[in-house]
Amino acid sequence: MLGGQYGEITVAMQYSFQAWNMHIPGKYRDLVFGIAAEEFGHVEMLAVMIAQLLEDAPVGIARQAVQDDHTVAAVVGGMDVQHAIVAGAGARPVDSRGNPWSGAYITASGNLLADFMSNANAEMQGRVQVARLYHMTDDPGIRDMLAFLLARDTMHQNQWLKAIEELKADGLEELPTPSNFPKKKEHTEVAYQYQNFSDGEHAGEGSWAGGPSVDGHGEHTYHDGPTTSAPMPPPTRPDARMYGTTDLPNRVEKIAGTVQDKLKRE
Amino acid sequence: MLGGQYGEITVAMQYSFQAWNMHIPGKYRDLVFGIAAEEFGHVEMLAVMIAQLLEDAPVGIARQAVQDDHTVAAVVGGMDVQHAIVAGAGARPVDSRGNPWSGAYITASGNLLADFMSNANAEMQGRVQVARLYHMTDDPGIRDMLAFLLARDTMHQNQWLKAIEELKADGLEELPTPSNFPKKKEHTEVAYQYQNFSDGEHAGEGSWAGGPSVDGHGEHTYHDGPTTSAPMPPPTRPDARMYGTTDLPNRVEKIAGTVQDKLKRE
Amino acid sequence: MLGGQYGEITVAMQYSFQAWNMHIPGKYRDLVFGIAAEEFGHVEMLAVMIAQLLEDAPVGIARQAVQDDHTVAAVVGGMDVQHAIVAGAGARPVDSRGNPWSGAYITASGNLLADFMSNANAEMQGRVQVARLYHMTDDPGIRDMLAFLLARDTMHQNQWLKAIEELKADGLEELPTPSNFPKKKEHTEVAYQYQNFSDGEHAGEGSWAGGPSVDGHGEHTYHDGPTTSAPMPPPTRPDARMYGTTDLPNRVEKIAGTVQDKLKRE
Amino acid sequence: MLGGQYGEITVAMQYSFQAWNMHIPGKYRDLVFGIAAEEFGHVEMLAVMIAQLLEDAPVGIARQAVQDDHTVAAVVGGMDVQHAIVAGAGARPVDSRGNPWSGAYITASGNLLADFMSNANAEMQGRVQVARLYHMTDDPGIRDMLAFLLARDTMHQNQWLKAIEELKADGLEELPTPSNFPKKKEHTEVAYQYQNFSDGEHAGEGSWAGGPSVDGHGEHTYHDGPTTSAPMPPPTRPDARMYGTTDLPNRVEKIAGTVQDKLKRE
Amino acid sequence: MLGGQYGEITVAMQYSFQAWNMHIPGKYRDLVFGIAAEEFGHVEMLAVMIAQLLEDAPVGIARQAVQDDHTVAAVVGGMDVQHAIVAGAGARPVDSRGNPWSGAYITASGNLLADFMSNANAEMQGRVQVARLYHMTDDPGIRDMLAFLLARDTMHQNQWLKAIEELKADGLEELPTPSNFPKKKEHTEVAYQYQNFSDGEHAGEGSWAGGPSVDGHGEHTYHDGPTTSAPMPPPTRPDARMYGTTDLPNRVEKIAGTVQDKLKRE
Amino acid sequence: MLGGQYGEITVAMQYSFQAWNMHIPGKYRDLVFGIAAEEFGHVEMLAVMIAQLLEDAPVGIARQAVQDDHTVAAVVGGMDVQHAIVAGAGARPVDSRGNPWSGAYITASGNLLADFMSNANAEMQGRVQVARLYHMTDDPGIRDMLAFLLARDTMHQNQWLKAIEELKADGLEELPTPSNFPKKKEHTEVAYQYQNFSDGEHAGEGSWAGGPSVDGHGEHTYHDGPTTSAPMPPPTRPDARMYGTTDLPNRVEKIAGTVQDKLKRE
Repeated sequence: MLGGQYGEITVAMQYSFQAWNMHIPGKYRDLVFGIAAEEFGHVEMLAVMIAQLLEDAPVGIARQAVQDDHTVAAVVGGMDVQHAIVAGAGARPVDSRGNPWSGAYITASGNLLADFMSNANAEMQGRVQVARLYHMTDDPGIRDMLAFLLARDTMHQNQWLKAIEELKADGLEELPTPSNFPKKKEHTEVAYQYQNFSDGEHAGEGSWAGGPSVDGHGEHTYHDGPTTSAPMPPPTRPDARMYGTTDLPNRVEKIAGTVQDKLKRE
Repeated sequence: MLGGQYGEITVAMQYSFQAWNMHIPGKYRDLVFGIAAEEFGHVEMLAVMIAQLLEDAPVGIARQAVQDDHTVAAVVGGMDVQHAIVAGAGARPVDSRGNPWSGAYITASGNLLADFMSNANAEMQGRVQVARLYHMTDDPGIRDMLAFLLARDTMHQNQWLKAIEELKADGLEELPTPSNFPKKKEHTEVAYQYQNFSDGEHAGEGSWAGGPSVDGHGEHTYHDGPTTSAPMPPPTRPDARMYGTTDLPNRVEKIAGTVQDKLKRE
Repeated sequence: MLGGQYGEITVAMQYSFQAWNMHIPGKYRDLVFGIAAEEFGHVEMLAVMIAQLLEDAPVGIARQAVQDDHTVAAVVGGMDVQHAIVAGAGARPVDSRGNPWSGAYITASGNLLADFMSNANAEMQGRVQVARLYHMTDDPGIRDMLAFLLARDTMHQNQWLKAIEELKADGLEELPTPSNFPKKKEHTEVAYQYQNFSDGEHAGEGSWAGGPSVDGHGEHTYHDGPTTSAPMPPPTRPDARMYGTTDLPNRVEKIAGTVQDKLKRE
Repeated sequence: MLGGQYGEITVAMQYSFQAWNMHIPGKYRDLVFGIAAEEFGHVEMLAVMIAQLLEDAPVGIARQAVQDDHTVAAVVGGMDVQHAIVAGAGARPVDSRGNPWSGAYITASGNLLADFMSNANAEMQGRVQVARLYHMTDDPGIRDMLAFLLARDTMHQNQWLKAIEELKADGLEELPTPSNFPKKKEHTEVAYQYQNFSDGEHAGEGSWAGGPSVDGHGEHTYHDGPTTSAPMPPPTRPDARMYGTTDLPNRVEKIAGTVQDKLKRE
Repeated sequence: MLGGQYGEITVAMQYSFQAWNMHIPGKYRDLVFGIAAEEFGHVEMLAVMIAQLLEDAPVGIARQAVQDDHTVAAVVGGMDVQHAIVAGAGARPVDSRGNPWSGAYITASGNLLADFMSNANAEMQGRVQVARLYHMTDDPGIRDMLAFLLARDTMHQNQWLKAIEELKADGLEELPTPSNFPKKKEHTEVAYQYQNFSDGEHAGEGSWAGGPSVDGHGEHTYHDGPTTSAPMPPPTRPDARMYGTTDLPNRVEKIAGTVQDKLKRE
Repeated sequence: MLGGQYGEITVAMQYSFQAWNMHIPGKYRDLVFGIAAEEFGHVEMLAVMIAQLLEDAPVGIARQAVQDDHTVAAVVGGMDVQHAIVAGAGARPVDSRGNPWSGAYITASGNLLADFMSNANAEMQGRVQVARLYHMTDDPGIRDMLAFLLARDTMHQNQWLKAIEELKADGLEELPTPSNFPKKKEHTEVAYQYQNFSDGEHAGEGSWAGGPSVDGHGEHTYHDGPTTSAPMPPPTRPDARMYGTTDLPNRVEKIAGTVQDKLKRE
């Protein structure tokens, strides 16, 4: 919840990079800057709470059974023996398995509709995780903080979905994203076709296999199996000095580079 | 595009894990299994294309200027000198900077609305990347393949958004996600309130700062600044054997554990 | 076992990339494609089993003692509190310590003898791990699945070793690999010599210190200690703008680049 | 070659951990300790060579075309602009794409036959890479060092394969590994059967589809397709507090934990 | 302690790379080479101790309560179920959370004062960790080994700090590092000024907010808040084929590249 | 410089976690909070600069020679083809080789002297890197920004070293760190002894091999070689179900666990 894929560090950094990379001033940039700042506040809130919770973390020989508060600390901030050894009972930017937070978690493509969808996703995954965590403690103080975070995640889910609608209403972007790639340059004959690659029979029952598309540009159809197929590729013969196993005779020493090339072209 | 955060390996594995973890049979599971299979087909398509493109990759001393096809190979599959040395001119599960694909890229929470939102996001980011890549080559064969992938991404964006609507219509899940966490247990007073943490003045102009919420359960309001504040926390005094710097006298040797505890409690 | 260095995801992906990168059609490519497909089946088998096992995973406050089945789930798929929080009791592409699966685990060099050796190694490490795991449960259903996997690993060990023999018999590759690098270009005088760098006295008793070599091209000899030695390298003086600590006077400001160069050449 | 998956750091560390974990004294331990020491020597040799090569690495504004020696430096040690900025023209424990060396690269299972197979694989992949690298320079000094490393890799390939034979001859281990897992506990009916999961027709032509097995314990047979199949699993119903999407009514607030449990058991 | 950020592998490798990259022969290089060798000895000492401790690690079904010695093994070398499964009760190059050792942990910039400061830091963090660990066991043998390591860390802290003083006395480097960057080229007006960005009031009470600087080149002053400010940047308009969301009309298809450029320049 | 080991993200996060984990209020906490805030400002400054620099990044087919500004962008923020494809010409939290920023880069042990030493080290490495970078551009705007950062790094080096002196003067911590570990419990006879493990002869000439120690508690001495030695460890015999290679007869099937135990004890 602090340092995982959908933890507070991720959303704080993701919104920050989206803000720094944003091409247009105004309400969208202010929104992203503002929520980034709020999320850094949540990072601080969690980190300080973890440090407070761990004040009484055991360091001695006897390993007491894990108490309730510490379970939450463990889940929120990945506390375990390494928190004692490495951080002296402090918070660390890791997930609950000890994996350090990674810059690869964030998304900031510069395309606002795609990025706001990524944000909505992050707030959903985050709220699911906080809701699961809520039941792992009965400490009223911690539950109170989680209840606050759940409400903010409710706000943020709504807000990013609204911002997506507003981007469309403002004519800045639409579906499919990116909408200003020329549609006639894609293979339009398969752009709204459900191709069934599954053994299951039921995917054809969904609205994605018939009826108008969400983007308003097509009508879904259903097709059983792939529409294209490709023969197995012919043998490849990279330069002999790659030492791959090919169908060419195995005698590089005598023939050297140029003869090898000649053989290959024949 | 093959091995990056939103590459084909990611979506193939993400949909597979969602399918294996799915709690209900029927159209949703068949859908996820089916698209997972299609995406593994795309992984194969790209990998074989890369291996074909790299057949003529240089291995000798002279470093020729990078040609057009190889630029695409580089971007699609991260080709560079390591592809020659390590893979002998073959594809590798890495991104275009050489970062190996990571299991941390995928999302499969078991909550279908949240996961389908993650899928829609992945298809949007993926389509943005393919569209950017399209302009980096003028080889007709490669552009043809990219045009096919763009169309399938169009389909997949539409399909996941439709599946989200269908989940709501079927009464399986709704906003905010997870919807079956008791709403009265969250801090409802801040669940629809835009709190402005930004210096910018324009975030209040958005629809997220007023009007009915997307989830249909609230009305947005605008508040300038945080609604809560916390004093700086008091000194913490973890066990002296953590060797942290605290406000307690620095004399562990004489006082040992129990005396230290006594001091701490005072 | 699912997402570790030698887990099922590794072999499924390793064999897939070997197949996509293979330069020759026929029995070797079909073999690699076939076993890749079988291993993806094992990935699915394990993932679904984990999801079934975790159906009753605890989410509440009390931390029950870990039961037997869950121990196996933990080892097979790395289950722990993060499986509950992140995956809602589902499988994840991580190892039993929570490290995400990495594309750096796979090997596909394009040289088939080297790659099949890598495959034999993976099946050996894998079978050792399954055998160890077998004793951590007494659930008959799980033991039955492990007994099946053990038998398939037996088959796969034999098969890759046979394929290596067949590559030699077909004249496609031989030892030392790569065999078509001109032997006279390597330092032949140390190509079959055991050089003892260890304090231990017993390495000379092995067959690697005398007698004909496995590749049929040499006779092993024994030499105590290294055959080459190098004096400590002379001082290096990189460009002063690297700000390294060198034996040159420390006064870059006055002398600038060109004078510095002059000094260096003296 | 210095810091990659099969670079010198990997083999030096892999052999060291195998030595430290070895259960038996004598020739095998001395062998592994000895080669570990030799490989640390190669790490030093390469690192010093890189530092010497980079002495004249450019730091100024103009980006000169990459010269020959520097190409080799780049490949051997991953040199590029970060070597200048971070290491001031020194060696770094990274691969040629800048990925830092990882402890996940090494294998030391404690089962010597499996581990020696891993060692043979590492020496084969390593020799393939050095052979490819040989053609990327025409500097006589560097080629001389590579020719030396090629010869040592020849020795090491032979040596690990001989050590495997000796382990068998000494009765310490045999195929399939681990050989002391009771064979009757595995599913013997599929332990030597080639199961064809590929569309290709040619895998049945190999020696792995007929004839005696390499381990001497079975006779290979050929079977088209899988021998087992499993129905799609039934719905799973994890605890409602996981907030997964299940087929149970979505009304957790009223029913709480116990009623939910009751529903689930029905 | 074996494979973590400040474990023995880190210092052994850090000192080795510093030695290999060192530009000057003599006492500093011999020092770094010597301590590198000592630290490799510590790696071996710990690895062998872990392998000995784990000899009786449980492999069966029943999970016994973790005993004291094994707690230390766990902390020192990251032992847990994966040590049994993967390493068969042997040491592994991982930290106590199972994160593999990473080449990104080490520092070797070629600037000796900066690097010796990094070394002093590593020895301090390391000694703090060993001191914490000391209290987690009461096994006399292990405590004896830890007491030895604590003493060596005492030596190494003193030694690197002394070496820093000696570098200054020898005129090789001084503060601020790198000292041969021309001081007049930096913004000297803020080079010794404490700028207060914190809400807290007390930072101005420290010696860093007044009085002579440690490097002897300046006098500290105190300033409340930043000295520079920057307006929000203007809109950026990258190439339309980046598909970012910009303030330009969204009609790439008709206008193509050149017209787009024209628009942008206006 | 943005997302590397010693980049701005690292120091911003490192100082933040130190602040959140700090046990005492007042000048030290305000200092760490304040510099953390300043460093987040630097992150923003760099990210926005990169986004501005990349506005004209090429996306088309022709690969122009890399211009000067872009070189700096590349070094500062790791720009390359992936910045175009993934971020649409925006900043990303990666280093100049594309490695994502990692939570493993930061240090916050709770022991202030050790942590301030880590901070001084980070500012030194950072200033060395900025100084190197300064020479890679001649753009006056960028050089101006780098000159500002160099001055702040000068301040920060001085400040952390002063804070270390102040910690000692305030009696909060001293050398060796942690100072409140009982000195008599460490092996005092080797706590100030230089043990020479190097072939080089010159390490004995340094002040670390004689004279009073920096911590004021000892006198350095010189000893050639190690003071302790350990015999090779005896054979280990882990549980047979680990399937390691041991000196015990290889017949687990007949003897099972208990008999095996009996054998082992003999």
